[in-house]
Amino acid sequence: MQTSGGHDLLDAVQPQSAQKLAHAALDSFFEVGYGGTTTRYISQQAGMSTGSLYSSYRSKEEILFLLTELGHQSALGVLAEAAARPGTSAERVRGMVYEFTIWHARNYRVARVCQYQLAALSPEHHAVIAKIRHEIERVLRAEVEVGVASGEFDVVDVKGFVLAALSLGIDVARWFSPTGRQTPEALATSYAGLAMRMLGSS
Amino acid sequence: MQTSGGHDLLDAVQPQSAQKLAHAALDSFFEVGYGGTTTRYISQQAGMSTGSLYSSYRSKEEILFLLTELGHQSALGVLAEAAARPGTSAERVRGMVYEFTIWHARNYRVARVCQYQLAALSPEHHAVIAKIRHEIERVLRAEVEVGVASGEFDVVDVKGFVLAALSLGIDVARWFSPTGRQTPEALATSYAGLAMRMLGSS
Repeated sequence: MQTSGGHDLLDAVQPQSAQKLAHAALDSFFEVGYGGTTTRYISQQAGMSTGSLYSSYRSKEEILFLLTELGHQSALGVLAEAAARPGTSAERVRGMVYEFTIWHARNYRVARVCQYQLAALSPEHHAVIAKIRHEIERVLRAEVEVGVASGEFDVVDVKGFVLAALSLGIDVARWFSPTGRQTPEALATSYAGLAMRMLGSS
Repeated sequence: MQTSGGHDLLDAVQPQSAQKLAHAALDSFFEVGYGGTTTRYISQQAGMSTGSLYSSYRSKEEILFLLTELGHQSALGVLAEAAARPGTSAERVRGMVYEFTIWHARNYRVARVCQYQLAALSPEHHAVIAKIRHEIERVLRAEVEVGVASGEFDVVDVKGFVLAALSLGIDVARWFSPTGRQTPEALATSYAGLAMRMLGSS
């Protein structure tokens, strides 16, 4: 679960005991899903008692929320960083699709948990994540609209493009494996190129 | 879980008791995942004893395999049907992306279970599904290669296109909801159009 900077997304979780539990929960959510994971199993895998889990987290759902929020904030971060670069709209959108795709390959474990276990979040936590997701869409759509207005892009269906471009990146987390034949870089380059074609700018 | 013909994919499961159990398993796999589902819960939801479940299926995994095989065969079926239509390569590929996408919207429940619970299959069952997945890729790639050879398409990275086009369809099952704003038809039309652009044929 490396971010593009080479450090682990979960480094931000402190103290160490909470971070250890978050790693154990991620492993288990990834392997058997949220529904198949117990707090007892998470604490055992972290080498702790169930009691110490509850001194770090109120519930299994709170750990899922932590992972989901960290993942979404990190993905939004790389997208926003690419959106802030100088250059043409085409260069920026190409960079955004590249970074979003490579993020989902590099962080495929946390990304898969983020995407597939959303329904298990409480309504309050779900609302927090929905806000970040809307922001991810908004950032990409805004740049596409700039390029359409300036005539750089030729798109009628901006909404369809935004949906498709984000969907391509997200779906990488479903099947990506670091032992597979595709590298994150090759995949991101391929999808960024296809996105340019979708925009009539290749 | 309607197929394009309007009937249910699980109609093929006979006798009725086995079909009822398959429906109950699908509901539970969809809601809480394979790991969160017990055979006891499946039988209860089907109004049967755990004993009668074991007279229809050897295990929970066997029901997952049944659902996964039915889903994959059905998706391959709509793709192969579109590949066999008369017309140009562009018309056929457009039809294939359209049908594959609309299938994943209409059958989003079985499709989501098919895609997200693959790791829970036994190695033998996984090999059967992998074969169908390779065939799905092969059918689309073959038609794209025809269009590239004839000059209808302008693609360097055929593999990247095939991956992206199938990924777009599959990812629909992650988020599609029949109560959402997107209809299966509008979505399939949008993605088929984007696929044509990716191929330099719009």
